[in-house]
Amino acid sequence: LKVTILGAGSATPSLLRNPSAQLLTDDHESYLIDCGEGTQFQLLKLKAKTSRIKNIFITHLHGDHFFGLIGLISSFNLAHRTEPLTIFGPKGLDEIITLQLKYASTFLHFKLTFVEVNVKNNYNLIDNERITVSTIPLDHRIPCCGFLFSEKPKLRNLIKEKLPTSISINEMRLLKEGKNVFDIDNSIKYNFKTLTIEPSPAKKYAYCSDTAFLPKIVEIIDGSDALYHEATFTNELLDRANFTHHSTAAQAGEIAKLANVKKLLIGHFSSRYLDLDVNLKEAKSVFNNTEIAIEGGTYLI
Amino acid sequence: LKVTILGAGSATPSLLRNPSAQLLTDDHESYLIDCGEGTQFQLLKLKAKTSRIKNIFITHLHGDHFFGLIGLISSFNLAHRTEPLTIFGPKGLDEIITLQLKYASTFLHFKLTFVEVNVKNNYNLIDNERITVSTIPLDHRIPCCGFLFSEKPKLRNLIKEKLPTSISINEMRLLKEGKNVFDIDNSIKYNFKTLTIEPSPAKKYAYCSDTAFLPKIVEIIDGSDALYHEATFTNELLDRANFTHHSTAAQAGEIAKLANVKKLLIGHFSSRYLDLDVNLKEAKSVFNNTEIAIEGGTYLI
Repeated sequence: LKVTILGAGSATPSLLRNPSAQLLTDDHESYLIDCGEGTQFQLLKLKAKTSRIKNIFITHLHGDHFFGLIGLISSFNLAHRTEPLTIFGPKGLDEIITLQLKYASTFLHFKLTFVEVNVKNNYNLIDNERITVSTIPLDHRIPCCGFLFSEKPKLRNLIKEKLPTSISINEMRLLKEGKNVFDIDNSIKYNFKTLTIEPSPAKKYAYCSDTAFLPKIVEIIDGSDALYHEATFTNELLDRANFTHHSTAAQAGEIAKLANVKKLLIGHFSSRYLDLDVNLKEAKSVFNNTEIAIEGGTYLI
Repeated sequence: LKVTILGAGSATPSLLRNPSAQLLTDDHESYLIDCGEGTQFQLLKLKAKTSRIKNIFITHLHGDHFFGLIGLISSFNLAHRTEPLTIFGPKGLDEIITLQLKYASTFLHFKLTFVEVNVKNNYNLIDNERITVSTIPLDHRIPCCGFLFSEKPKLRNLIKEKLPTSISINEMRLLKEGKNVFDIDNSIKYNFKTLTIEPSPAKKYAYCSDTAFLPKIVEIIDGSDALYHEATFTNELLDRANFTHHSTAAQAGEIAKLANVKKLLIGHFSSRYLDLDVNLKEAKSVFNNTEIAIEGGTYLI
């Protein structure tokens, strides 16, 4: 699991940073989280395989988190996309996108499904054999939630060169599940310990933006391998953070510490910060394993 | 009068070109024509004075011509704009923008007025002492019109160092209008020829995008000092141009020739054209005084 930062700026436009968007990628697909204006150009620049994006998650309807969505959908269509696309977002998103497609007389060549997210509850949006994606209710000026991506425990990996050619698919499945395969006489035919290796551990990634300092999310994101938490301001502007329902770098660090996560990525920086040293220093003073979300950067989780 | 190109690409996104937008500037204000995704970042990059933008003109509701508008309006608001803003565009634009402002709970600090344009008729949208802005009905897949900016004849310029200190405002006004000021005895008190110089000539700028080849616009744009005409394709793709209701470079040249304009700017290039030499050559073969609309470039009209 890895995450690529497409934008880590906040609402006021800046030439230094793009508005919020990131691409979370596993072996099977890519999840787009938020989609500020210009996201499609960031994806193009980074040569991202957009056909791998099957699910898009929008936290809330402030423009710096979704104004790029209609352009991305339109461009998918121009590029003759046929893969279905599902968009998870708060009430209103469906209406906004559908209205614009209507006036452009755009007939989509792919199936577009909207799932209206109840941002007030913590529940699963996706739950399949590989991953669950659940909501993280946040505290912002308008309805808003973050998203938690939790990989399911993975199957063991077969050591291909050690496998007999006579092995069946069912037998391989048992080995991958960590079970031995027995002969009719109950002796061990294939030992999973010798024919497979440990899978990579299941990872957990939490995305929390935009939000005021909200300690109650800790129980949801507890033990995450990586947490992206907004840090729009530094503590000098704590009043402004409180007033606008945003967080400071120190508060992001505090959440990371309380939730006992392994790594903290901070982003959603106000355009007033040209250099981010102070922001990083402030978060690190509370939670040492913090990194700045740098646009174009990819972070292993 | 001068025009700065903010975007000269067409719908399919490209890293070479931004979608349609340009800024027409006179001594008093700037007119934004079309507003594709990312226009606000282009304005920022070019350090444009956005408070000078009082009127925005949207040709049609294909996304590459207006997806940047909601972001620009939101950013104007974040920057505490107070100047009123008027947006001229086809039916639907008001609804699309208003819906998004509603879901973002955005309360604008400035007066935003939408004027629904009847794209089928040629008529004046603005007619004041300095300029008229009128519609140019075009032929595209959805309702679409271009815009013609015609400066009014200007007043003569006073030669300040030659003016007597006793001259009144009314007397100066007469001189600027090219009239002499007479004494009580009917002798010439102030001669406009010696106290003023010729004003710069009134200019005419036509913006035609997107459209199929449409010779009937010639009577509207006749004699323009500069014509921006879309040239999405080259003649090799004439069938595609016809099918999609776009023009080729040669067709843009043909319109310029028929309308007897002084200069042609071509733009709205398909992303398939990396190098634009062929496009320029093709237009020039029909109308020699053609230039490529280069992003970031400013063209005197």
